[in-house]
Amino acid sequence: MKVEAGAIWENVVKIREEAPLVHNITNYVVMNSTANALLALGASPVMAHAEEEVADMVKIARALVINIGTLSPHWVRAMKKAAAQAKERGVPLILDPVGAGATPYRSQAALELLTEAGADIIRGNASEIRALVESGATTKGVDSTSAAEESLQAARELARTYRCTVCVSGATDYIITEDYLVKIFNGSPMMPRVTGLGCTASALCGAFAAVNPSSHLAAAHAMAVMGIAGELAAAQARGPGSLQLHFIDALYNLSREQIEGKLRAES
Amino acid sequence: MKVEAGAIWENVVKIREEAPLVHNITNYVVMNSTANALLALGASPVMAHAEEEVADMVKIARALVINIGTLSPHWVRAMKKAAAQAKERGVPLILDPVGAGATPYRSQAALELLTEAGADIIRGNASEIRALVESGATTKGVDSTSAAEESLQAARELARTYRCTVCVSGATDYIITEDYLVKIFNGSPMMPRVTGLGCTASALCGAFAAVNPSSHLAAAHAMAVMGIAGELAAAQARGPGSLQLHFIDALYNLSREQIEGKLRAES
Amino acid sequence: MKVEAGAIWENVVKIREEAPLVHNITNYVVMNSTANALLALGASPVMAHAEEEVADMVKIARALVINIGTLSPHWVRAMKKAAAQAKERGVPLILDPVGAGATPYRSQAALELLTEAGADIIRGNASEIRALVESGATTKGVDSTSAAEESLQAARELARTYRCTVCVSGATDYIITEDYLVKIFNGSPMMPRVTGLGCTASALCGAFAAVNPSSHLAAAHAMAVMGIAGELAAAQARGPGSLQLHFIDALYNLSREQIEGKLRAES
Repeated sequence: MKVEAGAIWENVVKIREEAPLVHNITNYVVMNSTANALLALGASPVMAHAEEEVADMVKIARALVINIGTLSPHWVRAMKKAAAQAKERGVPLILDPVGAGATPYRSQAALELLTEAGADIIRGNASEIRALVESGATTKGVDSTSAAEESLQAARELARTYRCTVCVSGATDYIITEDYLVKIFNGSPMMPRVTGLGCTASALCGAFAAVNPSSHLAAAHAMAVMGIAGELAAAQARGPGSLQLHFIDALYNLSREQIEGKLRAES
Repeated sequence: MKVEAGAIWENVVKIREEAPLVHNITNYVVMNSTANALLALGASPVMAHAEEEVADMVKIARALVINIGTLSPHWVRAMKKAAAQAKERGVPLILDPVGAGATPYRSQAALELLTEAGADIIRGNASEIRALVESGATTKGVDSTSAAEESLQAARELARTYRCTVCVSGATDYIITEDYLVKIFNGSPMMPRVTGLGCTASALCGAFAAVNPSSHLAAAHAMAVMGIAGELAAAQARGPGSLQLHFIDALYNLSREQIEGKLRAES
Repeated sequence: MKVEAGAIWENVVKIREEAPLVHNITNYVVMNSTANALLALGASPVMAHAEEEVADMVKIARALVINIGTLSPHWVRAMKKAAAQAKERGVPLILDPVGAGATPYRSQAALELLTEAGADIIRGNASEIRALVESGATTKGVDSTSAAEESLQAARELARTYRCTVCVSGATDYIITEDYLVKIFNGSPMMPRVTGLGCTASALCGAFAAVNPSSHLAAAHAMAVMGIAGELAAAQARGPGSLQLHFIDALYNLSREQIEGKLRAES
């Protein structure tokens, strides 16, 4: 399970050639920027959240990305319906538990989704990943000496419980399964100042999962591409406004040479 | 029914002078970019979707744009209410059947809207336009030798059934009524890589319909302006991120000379 | 109550250091641009609108910004719940009555919110502020010789009735309490051509109120920063597309020298 520039590039090419349909049930804040990032990469985004149509949409999608950033009850019902359909059909399911831990409602919704349909990839920041474990009834919690180590323990616990890949994103991104750990060091400190780049990362996990049967590699490739495009953008940006623009252009123009020259991964 | 640069320019000037209120009931993904495009052109956008207020909003609007990109039942109810009010008051009604054909729910919603209140302009891509005809109970379907010809036949069928203008957008835009056909060749191949430029086109149809009583000319002028602004933007863009920015700036700065120099239409 | 560059700068530094959580219940059109502006300034935005979680979110927030731009009944219920919680806990509450006066539903919703929980700062354009007074049952209306004077009278009336700060934004921004009047002359005429910069202003009022106990000064500082960042952006912009990008970058890079050099206020 080594992360290699050549394999990332092959996946990028596949996404550009096949333009896989990625079905997003995501939050209002990031719908536009998520769709633009998927299009820039080469995938085909669709947003649909009505209980009346999510199952039909999952049928034609090659990945389902569920993001709980701006929840309400009828959205949660639709997410569950879509997730069940994805599970039934073997469509890769990515869960982004935005804000888990901030309110009980969010933690609960994320755990219900996981309990009912599982996930192939869970991507969140350290506190969201910890919150999923701390709120969960099926776990005995984590004890550790540092916040970073605690997050990794929580991620491993989640990966084991739901038999999935967990991605803890931050200055270093950790992509974790029960057996493997990959670290991606790419990215720019200005990225958290653009809203929704975490949500974009989850959507890109969907695009890569559509063309790569290994959830672990799909998540690692997505995070590497996020970080590399972020670095390329930051080199030209004068603030988060221009960073966002250059990030989209960088995804669109991403080359094999850029991936080979910039990838910093450890597995 | 000839599309002429001078007439397009007169309409642009009128929009800038009168700043017509364009009421949009549109999808979450594109609300921001649609509002910005209308503002850049010179129109006054408003977004409102509550059943409690759509009829009041239509009363003060000069065009109503209904876009089904992210439907749910209470939005459909509000769309019908707004459409009925627009029909009653003679407010130009533009329908964008986003994703018709992708799920039965969307096709059904679009057809119900058309059946209940009709439309002055329907704008969609080829597969959406075909889906409206194929899902419709009142038509006997289309038979043709090519996908392009099939789309034009479907558009003519729709135009006849609902006595409206149908715009099939793509590399070439076709603006069709029962009697007329206009082709617009402007645009850039990078435009489909920015989310929601089709939705923006529908919104601009609304702005032009607010100042031009001919739905056919309004749609043709809107599509010409979209394509010309897209070309001007693409000439400066390095990817879809910068294309979107330059597109808005191009709409804002659009001049008579640019329209005269760039228009490529056939009628 | 004098508006001074040094005090504005101190507040900016405090926001950057403390990254106060600003809870927004705002409209679909501006969620992304609002979040990006708060992040660029240094605050931490969160959007959450479910009745199930708004009270919990207010508990961890340092300001609550309610914006009625795209209302529907369950959003209004959540706004009331959040506002009540903010009032109970002393969390600064900012109300943006977008489109008040355009439809009875909006005017009514804004007045109900004010009646139930009040507000620390109300920010709107002149016609929205006048609409709140004209629709209110508790006022006897305004009579004046000019629209500008009428708006100021309405603002004073609102400030007295709800014991709050009222900000009437426009070419000149007026920040009004029962006893004070501050005028901010900063800004660019291109700003109204970008959707949602008024909504951004309300959100920045929230960020400044989180670090300044005086609602009056918080609103004045927010409007000054909006105007100065807008001027800095306009100096580099070629249209509203590039204005928006440069505005975000300007907020991110805002310096003491820029505030001192550009502030034009009268108190």
